[in-house]
Amino acid sequence: MAQLISDQRDIDFVVHEILEAHTLSELNDNYADFNKKTIDMVIKEAKNLAIKELLPINKEGDETGCTLENGKVTTPASFKRVFDLFNEGEWLAPTEDPQWGGQGMPFTVAAATAEYFNGANYPFMIYCTLTQGAGHLIEHFGTEAQKKTYLKNMYTGKWTGTMLLTEPEAGSDVGALTTKAIPNADGTYNIVGEKIFISGGEHDLAENIIHPVLARIEGAPAGTRGISLFLVPKYRVNKDGSLGQFNDVICTGIEHKMGIHGNSTCSLSLGTRGNCVGTLLGEENKGMKAMFLMMNAARLLVGVQGFACAGAAYMYALDYAKNRIQGRNLTEIMNPGAPAVPIFRHPDVRRQLMVMKSNVEAMRTLIYYVHYCIDMSKYAATDEEKAKYHGFVEVLTPIAKGYVTDRAFEVCSQGMQVYGGYGFIEEYPMAQLLRDVRITMIYEGTNGIQAMDLLGRKLGMNKGKPVMDLFGEMETTIARAKDIPILEKAATKVEEVVKKLAEVAIHMGTTAMGPKVLAAFANAHPFQDATGDTVFAWMLLWRAVTAAQNLEKAKKKDIPFYQGVIKSLEFYAQTVLPITLGRFAALLNTSAVAVEIEDDMFPS
Amino acid sequence: MAQLISDQRDIDFVVHEILEAHTLSELNDNYADFNKKTIDMVIKEAKNLAIKELLPINKEGDETGCTLENGKVTTPASFKRVFDLFNEGEWLAPTEDPQWGGQGMPFTVAAATAEYFNGANYPFMIYCTLTQGAGHLIEHFGTEAQKKTYLKNMYTGKWTGTMLLTEPEAGSDVGALTTKAIPNADGTYNIVGEKIFISGGEHDLAENIIHPVLARIEGAPAGTRGISLFLVPKYRVNKDGSLGQFNDVICTGIEHKMGIHGNSTCSLSLGTRGNCVGTLLGEENKGMKAMFLMMNAARLLVGVQGFACAGAAYMYALDYAKNRIQGRNLTEIMNPGAPAVPIFRHPDVRRQLMVMKSNVEAMRTLIYYVHYCIDMSKYAATDEEKAKYHGFVEVLTPIAKGYVTDRAFEVCSQGMQVYGGYGFIEEYPMAQLLRDVRITMIYEGTNGIQAMDLLGRKLGMNKGKPVMDLFGEMETTIARAKDIPILEKAATKVEEVVKKLAEVAIHMGTTAMGPKVLAAFANAHPFQDATGDTVFAWMLLWRAVTAAQNLEKAKKKDIPFYQGVIKSLEFYAQTVLPITLGRFAALLNTSAVAVEIEDDMFPS
Repeated sequence: MAQLISDQRDIDFVVHEILEAHTLSELNDNYADFNKKTIDMVIKEAKNLAIKELLPINKEGDETGCTLENGKVTTPASFKRVFDLFNEGEWLAPTEDPQWGGQGMPFTVAAATAEYFNGANYPFMIYCTLTQGAGHLIEHFGTEAQKKTYLKNMYTGKWTGTMLLTEPEAGSDVGALTTKAIPNADGTYNIVGEKIFISGGEHDLAENIIHPVLARIEGAPAGTRGISLFLVPKYRVNKDGSLGQFNDVICTGIEHKMGIHGNSTCSLSLGTRGNCVGTLLGEENKGMKAMFLMMNAARLLVGVQGFACAGAAYMYALDYAKNRIQGRNLTEIMNPGAPAVPIFRHPDVRRQLMVMKSNVEAMRTLIYYVHYCIDMSKYAATDEEKAKYHGFVEVLTPIAKGYVTDRAFEVCSQGMQVYGGYGFIEEYPMAQLLRDVRITMIYEGTNGIQAMDLLGRKLGMNKGKPVMDLFGEMETTIARAKDIPILEKAATKVEEVVKKLAEVAIHMGTTAMGPKVLAAFANAHPFQDATGDTVFAWMLLWRAVTAAQNLEKAKKKDIPFYQGVIKSLEFYAQTVLPITLGRFAALLNTSAVAVEIEDDMFPS
Repeated sequence: MAQLISDQRDIDFVVHEILEAHTLSELNDNYADFNKKTIDMVIKEAKNLAIKELLPINKEGDETGCTLENGKVTTPASFKRVFDLFNEGEWLAPTEDPQWGGQGMPFTVAAATAEYFNGANYPFMIYCTLTQGAGHLIEHFGTEAQKKTYLKNMYTGKWTGTMLLTEPEAGSDVGALTTKAIPNADGTYNIVGEKIFISGGEHDLAENIIHPVLARIEGAPAGTRGISLFLVPKYRVNKDGSLGQFNDVICTGIEHKMGIHGNSTCSLSLGTRGNCVGTLLGEENKGMKAMFLMMNAARLLVGVQGFACAGAAYMYALDYAKNRIQGRNLTEIMNPGAPAVPIFRHPDVRRQLMVMKSNVEAMRTLIYYVHYCIDMSKYAATDEEKAKYHGFVEVLTPIAKGYVTDRAFEVCSQGMQVYGGYGFIEEYPMAQLLRDVRITMIYEGTNGIQAMDLLGRKLGMNKGKPVMDLFGEMETTIARAKDIPILEKAATKVEEVVKKLAEVAIHMGTTAMGPKVLAAFANAHPFQDATGDTVFAWMLLWRAVTAAQNLEKAKKKDIPFYQGVIKSLEFYAQTVLPITLGRFAALLNTSAVAVEIEDDMFPS
């Protein structure tokens, strides 16, 4: 039986052989128990739950979707049972503080569990992951009272959480929001406004929903500088912790979306009856800063969602290709008597599978590595190291979100192509994966916004130190690879691309600060593409170095796996990196056409 | 009010200024009336019908879809009325022979009408275009009796037509089909078999459906060499032309698809009660040859479908970008008092629109040009010219289908990205366009199969003459462009890419005939990509040459349009062609990894 959702051997490779996740146990008391055996057990449990419970209801979630009646949202019938199971297993807040109900798990390990869960049923998972995210905000910025009121119930899934940013006229431009907060005498605020695109804004999975809400206190400055963050529960919470009265948060609509049907995307009206009360979370007018904390985590999570869809698509496509009998071997195309073979034998299908394989492996390594960097940014031995890894998280977040989800959409589309006509039929898994994954390129900041973040903020952050540190890591990997004869050729190609990235990054950074700033930003997305290609090449090279080293002492059954890791690098170096060099050449043109063309040269 | 579906000025440009479609009127009696005025009138009528009737029911088609009950398919409620209107307007067989009910219109002109119709409602159009295609088969291969029985009713939309190739185990490998034809004493055949993925295989728009069916006469050879083509009506036709008894063609299921919901995709059982009678169309065992005639036209049509979706997506995205107010100008990003602007002002959005603009314009020019080549292959003055243009049709078909639909999917996705979160909501047009367009990459031969056709068949066809002729055309355009100072720079870049294509085409062609044949075919799709980039560059250059020339004597209102044409070329030359050179570099690697990797190096 083929593996579902993900390639367990590759997960083991990344977690144990590349990142050596068990070494994290030495850094932090909470992690002390996470030796190799425990890590394996945790991932295995997540895998079992994902395959046995989340995956079987994924299609039901897509087909049934959510319905709204009289302000109440009904989720797909099986979701509640599985949501309860999920919480019984204590999976909702794996990386959060155990004192509040979290599991205190290393991020590196949680990445593997998240891959299985999201690959199995990502629309379902949104209810869970947003709850953790909202909880994390409270954990970080909340008063002791707020933490006591909300946290344990959220981390155990008794209540869920959301994130209320977007308004009809304030999407990418959060600063344009108009939701108001009017101070009450008791220190609370009356909240009035309309929010849209709220994932899990209303549903029937939990008895209360806690909304972190961005709003402007009356009289606060315009733009992002006047935004504060509030906690607004669906039902108020009495002092004894029991549920109080309805807090005037009304679900006025749910969106009919192309994908993620199992998750409710709600429009919420706050305070239409003047009766919506919230408490300030963090400081006045510092709401954006607080949201950014959540946003970085949320962006990485979106990368996980996209990657998990791509990973699942790859496993499905591979299985289909091995079993679908169609056509003869190309070398026998003129011989009608030759036997039909699995499409896995056809060169173009194998190319597609190699595209999927190399991209998914690079994604997995990058996504897990960013999680590892989070662990290190919190618990590395020295402050200097912590700062270094924090810088890596910052720089790599737009790649892990923007570049990864762009590629994830392509991988899912490639998977559909492997299925041929069956890929377009909803009975098979590809259509849903492609529809679901598409939103990951849009939400939590479109991928264009990620690219602007990379060029405008991350590149020059801290005088460019994080970027320089990252180049240092890449060079170390290249140097290691060049010492291994079978990798030398590919390593040289990766080195060429890394050097070119350094040149182009300086060019782009300088251009962005000069008179051609608009042209620079018109090339931000292509710059993110080329940077992402390079980062993926680095990941594949790192993998190949580890594989080549471990190959020497490998058990027989592991040999093909390690060889396959090296093949991914070779494929990428031969087929993608020449194109990456072309992307760099285009970036050095820094085309200004898009910003210089007059408006009336477009069709009216 | 913004233009819907397409850019009329650009259609005029391609039809009149580039292809000079009115000159076709001199070549053929049927075309004699098609002077500029008539052409404009025909296109205007199509545009009106498309916008007033087809477009408004597109969403209904998507939402309602088709239903199957007791073997009967019900199409969306409004489809029948519009189908009748469409046929009253005599739009079903625009390019077919008037003696059978066609309109005898130049293909070049029909391309423009097809763009409007398919851009407005492509799922609806499938019923119509397949009918024309099936009719064309009968016109070409049918006996006088078959023509008399079927053609007029089909070309006037009283009856519709289909194309029955695919079976559950015979998709891309048509030769594997098992549908049987058993000769009867009266010269007819009893047909028995199961066909799937039949667009419009059953519906309620017309009183009869005529199925061209691929089947194997008992005792015929295995593979494609033993396949014959039959005409199988849903209801038999009496000698007086009236409908006779039901012909045992039973619709056993319809597919639940990701897109094109308005079109029924049927499973058909033929002869389950031993009562399905067909007549041979063309010669015994020559069914594939006949189907190929239809297939080339069908493949070009799929290119039209993909392009029309992309074109519509571009017009929607442009309109949205001009009207959606969000964020401030980048140069005032730090000034919260600056006014919010349309997203059309943001560099990344303008880049996206330029990607869409340049691709859509190149697509339009290529698609119309291939139609023009069909006209010329039929009616050019000399046999030599006819042969030349026939060769162009052959070589350009995989580009017009495979490359165009790959890009069309990306353009639709880009359009969704311009809409941001609203793009993912089904209320807005982007989700449907993206879902609908995706099948164009799969059906009528997946784009991988198109790429194999290009590399394995078209490249070396007729000793390479068509390909060489095509290079000749490109060189002519380049030479003209180099004489125009403002185009010289871009022309030089296009020239570089064209020369590289020539080198790589020889390399790929030679490799495909040598021991590395599998590696060559593992690079067939990337070769199609690079070839397509080059063809698009040629199209954009051709457009720019015409625009630059016409600019000199242009009316004031046309100046921005012509300048915009030149901007598309410049954008493409600066941002895409360097990447195309990278693609060529990758092709010269001719990576064999995909075909050399051992099966067990993939996950099990």
